[in-house]
Amino acid sequence: MAERFVVRTPGRGFIDITRQVAAAVSTAGAVSGVANVFVRHTSCSLLISENADPSVRHDLEQWMGRLVPDGDPVFSHDMEGPDDMPAHIRSVLTGVSLTVPVLDGRLLLGTWQGIYLWEHRHQGHRRELVVSCVPGL
Amino acid sequence: MAERFVVRTPGRGFIDITRQVAAAVSTAGAVSGVANVFVRHTSCSLLISENADPSVRHDLEQWMGRLVPDGDPVFSHDMEGPDDMPAHIRSVLTGVSLTVPVLDGRLLLGTWQGIYLWEHRHQGHRRELVVSCVPGL
Amino acid sequence: MAERFVVRTPGRGFIDITRQVAAAVSTAGAVSGVANVFVRHTSCSLLISENADPSVRHDLEQWMGRLVPDGDPVFSHDMEGPDDMPAHIRSVLTGVSLTVPVLDGRLLLGTWQGIYLWEHRHQGHRRELVVSCVPGL
Repeated sequence: MAERFVVRTPGRGFIDITRQVAAAVSTAGAVSGVANVFVRHTSCSLLISENADPSVRHDLEQWMGRLVPDGDPVFSHDMEGPDDMPAHIRSVLTGVSLTVPVLDGRLLLGTWQGIYLWEHRHQGHRRELVVSCVPGL
Repeated sequence: MAERFVVRTPGRGFIDITRQVAAAVSTAGAVSGVANVFVRHTSCSLLISENADPSVRHDLEQWMGRLVPDGDPVFSHDMEGPDDMPAHIRSVLTGVSLTVPVLDGRLLLGTWQGIYLWEHRHQGHRRELVVSCVPGL
Repeated sequence: MAERFVVRTPGRGFIDITRQVAAAVSTAGAVSGVANVFVRHTSCSLLISENADPSVRHDLEQWMGRLVPDGDPVFSHDMEGPDDMPAHIRSVLTGVSLTVPVLDGRLLLGTWQGIYLWEHRHQGHRRELVVSCVPGL
């Protein structure tokens, strides 16, 4: 059975969920194969990024804010505010599904890789995640 | 065995394939695990996006058209026309493979998530898709 | 068991790893399901792209170099040089994990699809990859 958990975000920014994902994988037992992490929303996303220096996330946010600016007049969909459509675009660009190899119940991430939930709305949200463990050959 | 199906696109734009994917997953039985959707081309892509308001897709197309404009003079690869290279870039940015959790033979998508095929060529194409169901723990 | 291998890159650019991935899948036997390819770093990425005309990769590099320019003053994280932060952003945009359907031990790629490792640093690096084969229904 997949593990499901909720992350409450404080607003736009990154939340390191590596530990929650690792715990969900560990709960499934000493399996080898892959784990899929999935977030059930269209205005946040998942990514694997550098986990050592917070300035990487800071710069990522700055760069993305320039690529997909809030309140861009090209957007007609702004019912929930100037960050509504930008959140959908950021979610499409970085994706809502990540698959990571697993060995003996442990994520085979590189030393500098962390798994992050990226909240794209300025307001905090309740985000549902699903971690599925799939045994390999 | 994976399910395979073909989508005939009318040209650039989005086609909701959520029902076809759900049907392929259902055919595999009441399995829990993940389903992978894969499109066997390099000038279209797959994405999960908001499924309620068509203006989201409209804005996504407008924004992407500005990010990767047809006929950009930076492109040398234009044998099939001004949308040739932009289609390849859009395909790389949004990807050709999606993995979604499955519970009891049903896709565990969020309420507002739909699965879309994004045609990036102006001309209609015949696009081959593969849906693979993989049982989890 | 997953197959692991190393690719030594000569610096920024694309390396076709389709054959190595296909060999890893073949080693796992005549399984049908999916294969996941994962690279354990945050300054390179994996992608599926057109495999016939090298000008596609050339144009992709040119376009990406304009989207995420080296030495952009918006970046504060530049400890390893002007390509440090751009490499992290390119890695997030195109991703480090790819899942591909497999039929009877063979990758179900389209005719024009190749699997590439994209090195984003100017200096050559040693890149670790993991290929996991997962049997499907």
